Amino acid sequence: MIAVYPGSFDPVTSGHQDIICRAASIFEQVTVVVAGNSAKTPVFPTDERLEMLRAVTADLPNVTVDVLSEGLLVDFAHARGARVIVKGLRAVSDFEYEFQLALLNRSMQPSVETMFLATSTEHSFLSSSIVKEIARLGGKIDGLVPDAIVPLVLRRFGRER
Amino acid sequence: MIAVYPGSFDPVTSGHQDIICRAASIFEQVTVVVAGNSAKTPVFPTDERLEMLRAVTADLPNVTVDVLSEGLLVDFAHARGARVIVKGLRAVSDFEYEFQLALLNRSMQPSVETMFLATSTEHSFLSSSIVKEIARLGGKIDGLVPDAIVPLVLRRFGRER
Amino acid sequence: MIAVYPGSFDPVTSGHQDIICRAASIFEQVTVVVAGNSAKTPVFPTDERLEMLRAVTADLPNVTVDVLSEGLLVDFAHARGARVIVKGLRAVSDFEYEFQLALLNRSMQPSVETMFLATSTEHSFLSSSIVKEIARLGGKIDGLVPDAIVPLVLRRFGRER
Amino acid sequence: MIAVYPGSFDPVTSGHQDIICRAASIFEQVTVVVAGNSAKTPVFPTDERLEMLRAVTADLPNVTVDVLSEGLLVDFAHARGARVIVKGLRAVSDFEYEFQLALLNRSMQPSVETMFLATSTEHSFLSSSIVKEIARLGGKIDGLVPDAIVPLVLRRFGRER
Amino acid sequence: MIAVYPGSFDPVTSGHQDIICRAASIFEQVTVVVAGNSAKTPVFPTDERLEMLRAVTADLPNVTVDVLSEGLLVDFAHARGARVIVKGLRAVSDFEYEFQLALLNRSMQPSVETMFLATSTEHSFLSSSIVKEIARLGGKIDGLVPDAIVPLVLRRFGRER
Amino acid sequence: MIAVYPGSFDPVTSGHQDIICRAASIFEQVTVVVAGNSAKTPVFPTDERLEMLRAVTADLPNVTVDVLSEGLLVDFAHARGARVIVKGLRAVSDFEYEFQLALLNRSMQPSVETMFLATSTEHSFLSSSIVKEIARLGGKIDGLVPDAIVPLVLRRFGRER
Repeated sequence: MIAVYPGSFDPVTSGHQDIICRAASIFEQVTVVVAGNSAKTPVFPTDERLEMLRAVTADLPNVTVDVLSEGLLVDFAHARGARVIVKGLRAVSDFEYEFQLALLNRSMQPSVETMFLATSTEHSFLSSSIVKEIARLGGKIDGLVPDAIVPLVLRRFGRER
Repeated sequence: MIAVYPGSFDPVTSGHQDIICRAASIFEQVTVVVAGNSAKTPVFPTDERLEMLRAVTADLPNVTVDVLSEGLLVDFAHARGARVIVKGLRAVSDFEYEFQLALLNRSMQPSVETMFLATSTEHSFLSSSIVKEIARLGGKIDGLVPDAIVPLVLRRFGRER
Repeated sequence: MIAVYPGSFDPVTSGHQDIICRAASIFEQVTVVVAGNSAKTPVFPTDERLEMLRAVTADLPNVTVDVLSEGLLVDFAHARGARVIVKGLRAVSDFEYEFQLALLNRSMQPSVETMFLATSTEHSFLSSSIVKEIARLGGKIDGLVPDAIVPLVLRRFGRER
Repeated sequence: MIAVYPGSFDPVTSGHQDIICRAASIFEQVTVVVAGNSAKTPVFPTDERLEMLRAVTADLPNVTVDVLSEGLLVDFAHARGARVIVKGLRAVSDFEYEFQLALLNRSMQPSVETMFLATSTEHSFLSSSIVKEIARLGGKIDGLVPDAIVPLVLRRFGRER
Repeated sequence: MIAVYPGSFDPVTSGHQDIICRAASIFEQVTVVVAGNSAKTPVFPTDERLEMLRAVTADLPNVTVDVLSEGLLVDFAHARGARVIVKGLRAVSDFEYEFQLALLNRSMQPSVETMFLATSTEHSFLSSSIVKEIARLGGKIDGLVPDAIVPLVLRRFGRER
Repeated sequence: MIAVYPGSFDPVTSGHQDIICRAASIFEQVTVVVAGNSAKTPVFPTDERLEMLRAVTADLPNVTVDVLSEGLLVDFAHARGARVIVKGLRAVSDFEYEFQLALLNRSMQPSVETMFLATSTEHSFLSSSIVKEIARLGGKIDGLVPDAIVPLVLRRFGRER
């Protein structure tokens, strides 16, 4: 069974890493997909986000990294033979939005299912937005993002150590 | 009993159409009101939104279309003799915001009541934002907006068939 | 337009009274219906609940009181020519349950609509359960239930003044 | 990948059937598990619930039916080589409880993951409790439970046609 | 500033212990109050619950343990000079109920405030009900309740080691 | 015990004023902190927001006003010897965001606790955004913001009386 795990990954957090590892242990093949969101301009350019994901998934042989440059995610998934979209859920507000998206995706491409994983408790307060806010204010982001990513995030906010 | 049904209608969705039809079968007169939202610049200009609403309500003799160009919605409703504001609810996140608005409106104009209808299940994942996102990405919007509206929406996103 | 307002009314609270008055000012005729809930045995027998509702609605000429002794509420409404079921909403937890019920009722009887009113802020923490809990513990229930009802509630809990 | 799908199934609804079919198309093997809930006495005895599930899954070769008579679900899953617990989610209230359960299960048996599917919109208002309530009141349950189950449910409530 | 921390403590969980310790570090004096809930018969008798709380708070010199045998909690707090009721919140469902209770308590006794603490992430899935369910099924409860409490809980469910 | 009460206060509402007064009656010292939010450009400049807070807190001897110009709030609190961050909660959507923030803050500075107060019912529909929207549309803001603040808010929107 092939699964795709989409996200903005702006930047990759420890919560994303956790979902990737867990998805990789359930599905034969997982494609992590950098997907844009027309409403928000990312802080990290696409190539940096791909670089982060490659660093984080280097030790996971059944995980690949890709980018959704145009078209719908369900069509992307279908074209690659993926039957499952994986999403992590933290809280009720996540849930409602993701639920609506899953129902919409199903109405457009019934052969692709969205499956949700509960984010681990230690990451339940984590989001890319919060990481950016902390980095911007000069706070410590260790533990909030994978170790390999810390320098890259700090550099972007002019906070190199 | 006269009711007003306000919204951005940017664009009109099949969910809006469903609420209009149901409100029209309950109240003697329904005025659909294009109301701005200072936080968001609409994608469709006001005259296109009025045009869409007129197309959608053409067969409903007790429905009229209007625009709220300035002032508060409750004052608009009160001035037209409307005692009821109708709103459709899809999800918990809708509910909280709409609830706060209804309480606020009541504090400003106690003679106008807000009444909520539950959006039909087949439209529970629908919103104007999602329609715009799909049209932008080149996905199919048939069924998501009233048939009469499809060409107008596609044209705006340069996706004419 | 005829509306029904169903509930357990075990006992009637000031929140119920508020919804009854507001519904009576919108609809031509409102029937308040004492409806059972097979999961809970009421503390107040049906005739006491009818008595309370009659006391509370005595001054509202377009409000009648009835009881749903068997069958579905939507069939009861339909048989009496009611097109609308009115419900009060306090909080998100109310909303989800009532939403599911409204969708179910609509699937069983499409000609009857459920319309929701937001409970006034001063009653947002009120429920029949909380009134019973306070009366049981000997707390003051003035303001929580209509004045005419206070002695009846206290008597049932052996708290006559 | 083997998955278990636990529930009370008191009775099986069309929503349960939908989740079973979708899980069966994703995982190689799915075991539907009748699991008790010490807080509620079921209306349908265990053997009737197993009978319903066997009727509903008769055409799905990779689905088996079992019962959890004692011990924890995660231990049951682990002992059968299942790596995934599948759950259907309808609404926010479901989500919170199921989320807590998933985190608890993971803390007790990290090798078993809980994955959530969004219930199809047409079943979003459905629950075993609502089916029982309607059957008890003499309403029609066609469409709410799988066709093969209708007579069995009506019989239990003395509503045979 | 004196605070009371009420609960059923049926049994005391590690989540309760966490809130007690944190409250004890903020307020000069904390009284943990075993308060009944007329809707549920406790599994552990009052004296066992007091015994558990005394074991858990033995090392906290500014914490005392008491029982609310009759009357309202706000009156109990007021009589002891407590200005604050402390509550732990885990999830949205907690929040709504506790919020209603806090508003009600404030309407009855304005001089007593309810303050909420967010339960630590590692206890976010914990509740007395879940502990009882696991103990009943023979699962391990270590870590879910304070170490000193484990034997007492297991004994009650006939699961002594 | 010293507490900080952070916010954007853009502008100060009657809900903020209520939380300030209640916090001031619980804690020995309360510092109200104007804290930025990088995602939103405030409508009122920092000095006007400080001016509003000074006007509102003039009669509260144990309340001071400050601004967080750089760094994290928890570090600000810690540096001033504050052990408590006070927040007001209105609704579920508030709760989830504030909860995540509280857990994050605790992970960064365990000695500082976040405590939540339930906003009074009469302010439950109030927010700075709603005040700005109403002022912009020419509605009455009396009662929504403290009396001393009304002229300042109207002036900014060119609505002087």
